[in-house]
Parts: sequence; C-alpha cells; structure tokens
Amino acid sequence: MTKRKAAVLVSGSWGTALAAVLADNNYEVALWARSETQVDEINTLHTNSRFLKDAVLPPNITATTEMGTAVTGAEIVLFVAPSSAMRDVAKLAAPYISEDAICIHATKGFESVTYKRMTTVLLEELPISADRLVVLSGPSHAEEVVRKLPTTVVVASANVEAAEKAQDAFITPYFRVYTNKDVIGVEVAGAIKNIIALGAGLTDGLGFGDNAKAALLTRGLAEISRLGNAMGANPLTFAGLAGVGDLVVTCTSKHSRNWRAGSMLAEGLSLDEVLSRMGMVVEGVRTTSAARELAHEYGVEMPITEQLFAVLFQNKSPRSAVESLMGRGRTHETEDLPGV
Amino acid sequence: MTKRKAAVLVSGSWGTALAAVLADNNYEVALWARSETQVDEINTLHTNSRFLKDAVLPPNITATTEMGTAVTGAEIVLFVAPSSAMRDVAKLAAPYISEDAICIHATKGFESVTYKRMTTVLLEELPISADRLVVLSGPSHAEEVVRKLPTTVVVASANVEAAEKAQDAFITPYFRVYTNKDVIGVEVAGAIKNIIALGAGLTDGLGFGDNAKAALLTRGLAEISRLGNAMGANPLTFAGLAGVGDLVVTCTSKHSRNWRAGSMLAEGLSLDEVLSRMGMVVEGVRTTSAARELAHEYGVEMPITEQLFAVLFQNKSPRSAVESLMGRGRTHETEDLPGV
Repeated sequence: MTKRKAAVLVSGSWGTALAAVLADNNYEVALWARSETQVDEINTLHTNSRFLKDAVLPPNITATTEMGTAVTGAEIVLFVAPSSAMRDVAKLAAPYISEDAICIHATKGFESVTYKRMTTVLLEELPISADRLVVLSGPSHAEEVVRKLPTTVVVASANVEAAEKAQDAFITPYFRVYTNKDVIGVEVAGAIKNIIALGAGLTDGLGFGDNAKAALLTRGLAEISRLGNAMGANPLTFAGLAGVGDLVVTCTSKHSRNWRAGSMLAEGLSLDEVLSRMGMVVEGVRTTSAARELAHEYGVEMPITEQLFAVLFQNKSPRSAVESLMGRGRTHETEDLPGV
Repeated sequence: MTKRKAAVLVSGSWGTALAAVLADNNYEVALWARSETQVDEINTLHTNSRFLKDAVLPPNITATTEMGTAVTGAEIVLFVAPSSAMRDVAKLAAPYISEDAICIHATKGFESVTYKRMTTVLLEELPISADRLVVLSGPSHAEEVVRKLPTTVVVASANVEAAEKAQDAFITPYFRVYTNKDVIGVEVAGAIKNIIALGAGLTDGLGFGDNAKAALLTRGLAEISRLGNAMGANPLTFAGLAGVGDLVVTCTSKHSRNWRAGSMLAEGLSLDEVLSRMGMVVEGVRTTSAARELAHEYGVEMPITEQLFAVLFQNKSPRSAVESLMGRGRTHETEDLPGV
C-alpha cells in the first residue's frame, strides 16, 4: 500500500510538531524549510534543534527546500507560516497543489496592514475554494505535542467533510481533534488572544492578583466574542478550545512573549524599550492595533483593547488604564452578546 | 442622615471580605458570628485573624452572635454560610427579615443529599419571593478583596431591579459588579467548577502539561454548560465571570484544596488517604457525586465528571481515566450546545 503524503510549510516549532503528528498517523510527510542546514539536520539526525530542543522526529518526515517536491502529490497541505509570510508561502505553493488536496492552516494572526484573516489570504492565493480549506487551532504548546502529552485542538471549515478529513489526518491517542463549522470564530479567537496575554502581563506586573487577571481574561473573552460576532462568528466558539482554551494557556504561561512584554510595560518601560529588550516580534502589540481598527470598522466596543492601545501608543500609564476599566458605567454582563 | 444597614451571615473569609466592601460603601454592617471570641476580636481589634490574616476591617462593621440584632432593619441581608449550613442559617434569620430587604447569597455549592441550589433552599426557608433574591459569584479570592485589589463579580436575579440594588450595594472603585438575569447558570457554574479544579490537580499530578489542563478546563466548561442548559441556564453565562472567570482562578491556583486533592490522587493515594491527609472538606469530591446524579437526572453527557467519579469511587487509575477521555469518538466541538 502506498503511503499517503502530507506537506507541511514551514519548519518552525509548531509546523514541525504537527508534522510529527501526521507522521505518527502514517503519512509520508514532506517538511518544507528555507535553510539547507536545517533540511540536512532533519533528514540525517531527525531533529530540529533550533525550534524543538531534545525532540526526536519520526523517520517518515523528510525535509526539503524545494516547494515542488514538498507539495506535489500531497493529500494534505498544512500551512504554518508566520502571518506576515503566509501570502508569500501560499504563492510559492500554489502551482503544486493537487486537485483534491485539503489545505489546512495553523497560523494565528491577521495579515499586516490589510488585517485579513489567514483563510482569506489563502483563498486569494491558492487555486482552491473554501470547501477544501480548514483552520486548525487550540491550546497547544508545540513542545508538549512532540512529547505526545495529551492535547486537544479544533479544526474548522465551511465544509464539514473537509474538517473531517483534517480530523482523520491528525487524530491520534494523544492528539484529540474536534470539528467546528465556525472558521471566522476560530481565526479571530486565535489572533486576538495575544492582546489579552499582553494585558495579563500588565496586571500581573502591577501586582493586581488573580481576581484581576481572571476578570481581564473573562471580559477580554467577552470583547473578542463581540468583535467575532460582528464579523460573522458564532459566540460559542469563543467558549471553546480556540477561545477559552487557548486564552488560558497563553495567559497563564509566563513563557509567553506577550505576557513578558506586558509585565515590562507595568514596570514603567516604554514600548520602544520593551521591544528593544525583547529583540523579537511581540504579536500582541501589532494585534492591538489590528483589533482596535476592526472594532471601529465593525462598530464594536472593546474597552480592554482601547486601554491597551492607549498604554502602548499614547503614553497612558498602566495603572490609570486599569482604573478606567474598573470605573466604567454599570453593565449587564451578557447584554451585548447575541441570543440573550 | 441615618446610615443604611446590611447584615452578613456568617463571618468566614468570604463573608468578612464582602462585609468590608459593604462597609466601604457606607453601610452599617452587622456581621453574624457563632463564636463570642471572634465577635470580641472583630469589635475591639477590627480583625478576623482566623479567616483573614493581616486584614484590618473598617470600623463600621459590628459583629454579633444575636441573629435578631444582626438582621433586624437590614436593607441587605447577605448569606455566605457553607452550603451544608445554609438551610439552618436561613431558618434562624427568617423571622427577622424586613419586608423590603434584598436577600443575596454568595455561597458556591449544592445542598447535600437534595442537590438543591442555594436560591432554592433560601426560597424554601425565607419569607420572600424570587424577586428579592440575588446570587453573587465570580473570580474572587477573599484575601485580594480585603486588600482592595481589582475584582469583578456578577449578581444575578430573576428581578433586574433586585440585581441592580445588589450592584449598587457592592460596587466600589476596586469591586466591579455586573448584573445578569441567569440565576441558575451562575449557581451551577459556581458549584461545579470545583470538579474541574479536582481534575486539573489530577492532570498536573500526572505531569500532563498545559495543553491537557487547558483542554480539561475548556471541555469541563462545555459539560457544565450542557448540564446548566438542561437545568434552564443560559449557556453564555458559563463564558462569563461566574463560569470561565471563576474556573480560571480555581484551576490555576495551587492553593486550591480541590487541586491539591487531585494531585494526590494522581500520585496514587486512595480517596480515603487523600481526605485524611487534607483533614478538611474537599468540595469537589462531594460535588462530583452531585453533578453525576444531576447529569443522569437531566440526561446530559458529562464524560469528565464520569471519569472523575470512577477515579474517586470506583478505583479507576487516573491515567486510564485520561486515556478514556482522549479515546472517545470523534466529536463536533459545539454540536451539543444549543443555538449552533
């Protein structure tokens, strides 16, 4: 029996971990990488030490720098490029996508400048329609997935059959996959949770305690749901793995870059100082601008996002931002969610 | 101007913290306690050291062992008795409740044996109807509230005006109060989250990592929502402060008794050994039986509760319980929630 083929683009930590899951599920996995050194390491040592220290990869993962080699003949094409690179990677892959391939992405974030969702970008660049496109998301540190620790994710597609094919491709005893129809909700939840992680770092940095952090997380979820709903999402998606689940993992892990950036802001550092100390992209900063822009576009109230924007870009002090949030008018908890 | 009076029954940590909030809001607060020693300490030293170390209470809190003295003339009567004592405390207070008093409770849990909600118990014992009854819940460590750290809660009542009176009574710059109409949802969420905390201790104890804990929390929330919905709750309440918010605080705090009990079970101790080591009530153990009973009564699937029950009372190993959960059939994430 010929093995089924899957392609994974690109070989960062999450892409590599998901490649390992597909390989465990008996796919012949082609992992597209940009660096020859990394390709050699994966093919000879079966490790990807820059992104996943200590992990030994299954032998049925083969890395390549050739996009045609990676994608041609793959039943499953998984896109895990950074949001800023997704369009370019999709353009490179487009000529090689098989007629019946399912395309899945597992990238959290909006495109820069356009604030488009990743499925929108992929539909614009790939020769496929929405009925072969799936998004995979959920609370999932890559380091735990390669160690085969129990993990759950959600796959969402406009087409239930495509979601179920993605489910079949990934489901293993340690990797449980739920299907969902709400592509917009899953993508909005995954992109925007980084804002709340930034806010969690900020409240922790101010020494505000667990009550305040839980409040931020819950009210943050409420405003993400409001925006998602205005964009066409199902509000219940935000109570699921791609919403609450991912938010909990992101906001309670002190390894999160967004959390660290928030806690530095609380200590009184300016955004420029924080970014230069971090020396790398802090997704939540960019996403705060995106979410605020979308909130205005869709006419949705997002008080936490507004206050974070003021702290990041308008020199508002973190403490007075929290005071502004606590001092708002009396509110009915669910008044602004649909269906109540 | 005569000060408005509030009564708080009884003087545990949460009752005392909420008494301090009412006192900060200019109520003359009568705090009912069972012990003369405690009454003396509160009235002379303005501390309640057994329950809230280091906190200094406002001078307008007066403790008493006399129920009549405490309750007579109070506009607000706040019940914070343990769930097992709620009926007895309500019986004692009933003769003194004013005709226009608002009764509020802030107790999480079902009544033993009957598995009744706390508002049901109060309606059976107090000379009031549901339009003067309110439940207060949310993510709120008492220790943080007396330190005036930012905290948010929800007050729910069948009667919006009663909820708004409760909101007015408690809202301060550090204590933000949201109203909600869903009494059942708020009570079910608060009672059942302890099961999930027990499960979180169990997965942490097994070394399963953050992905597994986030999954447990999210899927736990889904099954609490299902039960709540069958009992008449609004599923969105479970995405709010009384649901997600409280769950996050409970499941991520290692000080939680339920979490500790779960982690000891993971180490291989029997339930009897765990309970004797803890030397006190573990609410989640009792609630697991209650929730399982209610799930059967309402015909709701609660796989996490079932597996915890098997671990607690049927000698199932924690590891095989997790395997049972991961190995269930393929599932559509939101298929069992209404409105999708």
